[in-house]
This record gives sequence, C-alpha cells and structure tokens, in this order.
Amino acid sequence: MSVVGWTNIGELCTADPSVGDGQLGVIRNAAVVAVDGRIAWVGPAAEFPDVDVSHDMGGSAVLPGFVDAHTHPVFAGDRAAEFDARMSGTNYSAGGIRTTVAATRAASDAELAANAARLAAEALRQGTTTLEAKSGYGLTVHDERRSLIAAKTVTDETTFLGAHVVPAEYADHPDDYVDLVCGPMLDACAPHATWADVFIERGAFDIDQARRILEAAKAKGLGLRVHANQLTQGEGVRLAVELGAASVDHCTHLGDDDIEALAGSATVATLVPGAEFSTRSVYAPARRLWDAGVTVAIASDCNPGSSYTTSIPLMIALAVRDMGLTPSQAVWAATAGGAASLRRDDIGVLAPGRRADLIALDAPSHVHLAYRPGVPLVRSVWRSGQSAI
Amino acid sequence: MSVVGWTNIGELCTADPSVGDGQLGVIRNAAVVAVDGRIAWVGPAAEFPDVDVSHDMGGSAVLPGFVDAHTHPVFAGDRAAEFDARMSGTNYSAGGIRTTVAATRAASDAELAANAARLAAEALRQGTTTLEAKSGYGLTVHDERRSLIAAKTVTDETTFLGAHVVPAEYADHPDDYVDLVCGPMLDACAPHATWADVFIERGAFDIDQARRILEAAKAKGLGLRVHANQLTQGEGVRLAVELGAASVDHCTHLGDDDIEALAGSATVATLVPGAEFSTRSVYAPARRLWDAGVTVAIASDCNPGSSYTTSIPLMIALAVRDMGLTPSQAVWAATAGGAASLRRDDIGVLAPGRRADLIALDAPSHVHLAYRPGVPLVRSVWRSGQSAI
Repeated sequence: MSVVGWTNIGELCTADPSVGDGQLGVIRNAAVVAVDGRIAWVGPAAEFPDVDVSHDMGGSAVLPGFVDAHTHPVFAGDRAAEFDARMSGTNYSAGGIRTTVAATRAASDAELAANAARLAAEALRQGTTTLEAKSGYGLTVHDERRSLIAAKTVTDETTFLGAHVVPAEYADHPDDYVDLVCGPMLDACAPHATWADVFIERGAFDIDQARRILEAAKAKGLGLRVHANQLTQGEGVRLAVELGAASVDHCTHLGDDDIEALAGSATVATLVPGAEFSTRSVYAPARRLWDAGVTVAIASDCNPGSSYTTSIPLMIALAVRDMGLTPSQAVWAATAGGAASLRRDDIGVLAPGRRADLIALDAPSHVHLAYRPGVPLVRSVWRSGQSAI
Repeated sequence: MSVVGWTNIGELCTADPSVGDGQLGVIRNAAVVAVDGRIAWVGPAAEFPDVDVSHDMGGSAVLPGFVDAHTHPVFAGDRAAEFDARMSGTNYSAGGIRTTVAATRAASDAELAANAARLAAEALRQGTTTLEAKSGYGLTVHDERRSLIAAKTVTDETTFLGAHVVPAEYADHPDDYVDLVCGPMLDACAPHATWADVFIERGAFDIDQARRILEAAKAKGLGLRVHANQLTQGEGVRLAVELGAASVDHCTHLGDDDIEALAGSATVATLVPGAEFSTRSVYAPARRLWDAGVTVAIASDCNPGSSYTTSIPLMIALAVRDMGLTPSQAVWAATAGGAASLRRDDIGVLAPGRRADLIALDAPSHVHLAYRPGVPLVRSVWRSGQSAI
C-alpha cells in the first residue's frame, strides 16, 4: 500500500462546491492523502496524518488536474501558413481540414502516435491530466482506424470522428460517405473508441446525415459527442440533446431554445475559446449558459487548423476575459466540467475515491490562472498520486 | 576572444527588413556567429565558419530576444482579489494603485529587489532579454529612490514614475505633490534612472502637471516616456510628441490627429495588450498606427493591477488576434520595436555589431508564437552570446 500526502496547501480547490467555499469548493490551509493512487482523505493541514511520501506545497494553490474534453491530436503537418494568411488578411488557397487529411494519410503510424504523444506531453506540462482525443483526419476506414489506435496510445478517451468533413473524393456524392461512416468505418473503428462525434455545420454534415451517424454509433455502444453551432445557429445542439449526447461542443451561436434544451438535459456544453481566439470569431455565451443552469466545460480543441494550443490555463483566462465566467467558474469548467463532459466520476474533483490527479501552481490562488495570463504557472503535476512533472 | 555560433537555423528572424524577407527580415537555413557577445556574422548555414562553441538549432526558428519596453516590476503584494471581483462583476472597494503603494512602502529593499528579480527571471524564461522597469509604487522621495535602486538590480533601463498617481496624502492638494515630484523627488531619483514617465489621465495627472514634470525631468537629462490615452482620448499623445518623448504608451483611445502627430515624429507608440486583456478594455488600434507609418512596440505592462503578465509571446498573440497586426509585424514590434521605444541600437535586431541576445523556439517559424497561443515555445535564450535559459 502506497500512502502519499500533500500538505501546507494554501488554497485547495476541490471543485466540489459541497465541501468548501464557492463553486470550486475551496478549503484553505489544507492537506490531501492518497492511497494507491486514489484520494483517501481531504482535510485541514493541521490534521495531516503520517504518510509514506509527503509533499510540502509551501502555501501554493492545488487543483484537480485539468480534464481537456475536446482535442484532435492525431495528425501530421501544420497549417501555420494558412493561419498567417488568415490573420494577415491575405489570399491563400486554404485547403482547411483537407490539407491535414492529406498529410495525415501520408504519415506512418509511428508519426501519428509521436505527434499525439508530443501534444499530450505538452498538455501535461500545463496541467492536463486527462484528455479526450479524436480521429477525423484519416477519413478512410484504414486511416480512421489507425488514427484511433494512435489516439489510444495517449488516452482511453478516444473519439471516432470519421464525420469530421466529407473527404474530397466524396465531394460529389456525400451520402455515400455517410454510408461508409455508418457501415464499414464504424465497424472498424468502434473497437478502438469510447465515443463517436459528428461535425454538424454547413459544409460538413447536415442534421439528417448526423442523425444517421449518431444513431448508428449509439447502436454500436459508443457514447455520443457533437460539434455543433460553431459557425451558424443550426439544429445541432437540439439533436445532441435529443439523442442524449454526453457533450455538445463549440456552442458559439445559440438561440434561447438551444439554451433551454441544454438546461433541461444531461448534455454538457463543452466550450472551446481557443477556436474562437484563433479564428477571430465571437465567443460562446458561457455566462448565459451557466446562468441558465447548463453544465459548462472548457476545452482546448487542440488541432492544427483552428486552435493549435494545448493550454488550458489560457482557455481559463479567455473564458474569464471573453466569455464572462468568473475565475472559479472557469477553473471548475476545466476540471469538474471536463469530467462531466466525459461522464467520468473518477476525475476532475478532489474528493475521497477519486483519482489523485492534481496540480500545484506557482501561485497562491486559482485566480492567478486568469490574473496572470500567458505565464506558465503549473509547477507540478501528479497522476494517480505519481509525480508526472 | 570567444567565438560562438548558431547553425541549422530553419528560420532566422533578423528583424531587419533590409536583409531578408518581409518586416522580420527572415532568412531560411541560416547561421549566426558572435564574437565576445556581439554578432559578427549572419549568413547561410552552408557558409557557417569554424567557431569555439557551436549550437545546432535543428531547424528551429531563431529570433532576437524580446525587448519589453514597459514594465512595473518593483512592488509588493498582489491584487488577485481586486481582479477576481472586477472579472466577476461583484463589488469590491478597490484601492487600485494605492493598495500596491501601501504594500510597497511597507516592504524592505530586499523584498522589492526579490520581486523584481522573480519577474525578470520569469520574463527571461519566456524570451525577454531586455526589460524596462519603472518605479511608481513608492510615491515618496525615499520610496521612489529605493524602488529605482531595486529596479537597477534587474535592468539598466530604469524609469522614474513618481507621477504614477497622486498619493492619498496629497489628494486634497495635488499640485504640492507635483512640486515634490519636480523637485526633491526628481533630484533623489535622477541618478538612478534613464527615463522619466508620467501617467496622463483623469484621476492621475493633467496635461499641465505632466508638462511641468516632463520638462523638469528633461532638464535633468532624463529621457521621456508617457502613459497616455489609456482610458480617454486626451492630449497626452500630442504632448509626448511635442516634448520629443521616446515613447508614448497605451494609446488605446486615439483620434486621427494623434495618429498624425505620431506618424510625423520619432516617438514610438508602445502598445500594451495585456492591460486591455486584463481590464476587458478595447484594444489599441495597432493596425491603424502601423499603416500610418508610426513605429509600434509591444510590451507587457507587467504590473499587479491591470496586467500581471510577463509573457511577450501572449502579447504577440493578442496583437495579432485583437489588434490586427500580422504575426511578423507583431514579432517585429516586440523586438526591434521595443528597442526603438528604448532608443537602443544595440539590441532588438540580429545584425553585425548588435548584442547576441537571441532566442530559439520549439517551433519552425515565428508564426507559431501567434498560432500556438499559451504554449510555452521559447526553448533557449542567450544574452550577449551566453546561455541564459
């Protein structure tokens, strides 16, 4: 039995509002004990018991590790030139997602796994202890399957996103691609995925195509996630709620009916401020969602086209600055909210029984994640009680 | 004689548009040689000569070290609670700058120097090889003088900012404070400062007070810098130009006449997107300034109230996303532009004769500083040819 403890925690953010102050469940001058990688005890530092290995936090803030519920880390190449052109207002014949599809298909399995590993390591250094990882740059049976196998090397939370865009070779007969996704591609991919996802948008998949794909995936036992209402106010959010998706992601353009549907559901709104930052879009209405009672998560949407960042600390700063969340709400959304988006009850909160996934900041309070934007404040990271950074 | 070289540089950003592509003077597959801490040669990697110490950049981008021309690192305490309240929309009897003045006066000389050193080290890790540092939280003869002595421990670019705000004890007779600043305080501080600065704004100093202070400082041989047009469109920018200030900082609210005055002058517009980020302000019109021919610098404005960041990479990302600069313009503004703001011709550009202050990114291009927001991309830093990170 391995008993590990953390004490002299100036501000422990449990992310459980029932055990401490505010949404983040803050306890001051706290300590935590983990047994065999799971939290066994949380309490005042004055009552810190004997442990095998003790970490003195020196008054720093300690938080749950971030849970990044939306990433696309399996790809090859980058799209820096496309980004540069978009930001510079110059013409560029951008291939968009299809550019990355071509590079990904041309890459070896080892290259895809190495790219995912690089990004997962980068995310870990900034405090992300769990990340979801999507396929979606293969768009053939073979390439989607091996993308998921690459994703599996960095996380158990893998998502089949064959329905990311219609690949160029199906541009003239997209319903045949939907048949492929619902049939042989799903058959090949389902064993390697926990989730299925569809990008519902003009230029991607329409509501009827999405329904077919999501229902087929559900029948295969996959949980559902949806990209919706990113660029236009479509019907995607309502479809996600109707089908009982765990999460609907982006949610940039919402009507009152969308918010009402989410508020009455178990579907989490996973917001991705990095995509809005890197495409100069308006930001999702996090404040309205939160106030309506919707469960909100914040994720990076790490991908080479529209949000090439792994930084949950920056996502928190943006959620505060540009989406109207308070610092404690934003941190909750990046921890407990991310866990809810993945329907996980073993991470995202620092409470007995949960995994000892936690981070220490080089700061006395979680507020500093928004107050000190761009400054690398994550000093130490533990996963299942083991030092990871 | 010490001969140090860097080769296999995938993208060398010289910041000298006359020697390479675009505003950043980009040379691909390049090498650099420094002799005794100064750059002696820049050229193609294929012509890299023999050197004593050789660094292989592995295809990475290499840039001049960032020049942060506007920081306030000499203070004590923080204002996280004030930030939290501002972002949360809750009431808080914020003391603003005066809160930090009280904490700074109560701190020891060693504490002030340690805080400045901590922030300078944090900035260095993110690529800042030169920073300007202001006083302005002392606001007594004794405390301004010792603030500058603390600033001097981290930089030669020290700025006397006794005219930051009118301290509480002079609230009813502010002109007496102006007398103090122009007289005994300037006498005590000038030996420890290169620059003098005034915050021209409603609630700080008016245009006549500012003129008195700046003229007195100029007569003492100090260079001039001005905080102006941050919250309102006042006369500060035009006064700065009239008096030949090296830089006018903030420039958030500008009229056409302000831009015209700057464009016809040697005064640099030093923009501070961090302040606008952390106060939910509109951003300065960098695009308009640049297009009008104004020399633009980008700085952090690191201070505990309105911009508690040292991250020039984030400032670059914000300047691109929210101020309309291209990635190469934003990087130029944070290197050569910063040097111009400090009237330095020995830093900010990678050219023979300049200091070998340079940084290597964990990325193939400077574009990644904006394309990968929040990701710590500065891998290595050298100052005067010596490894610093």
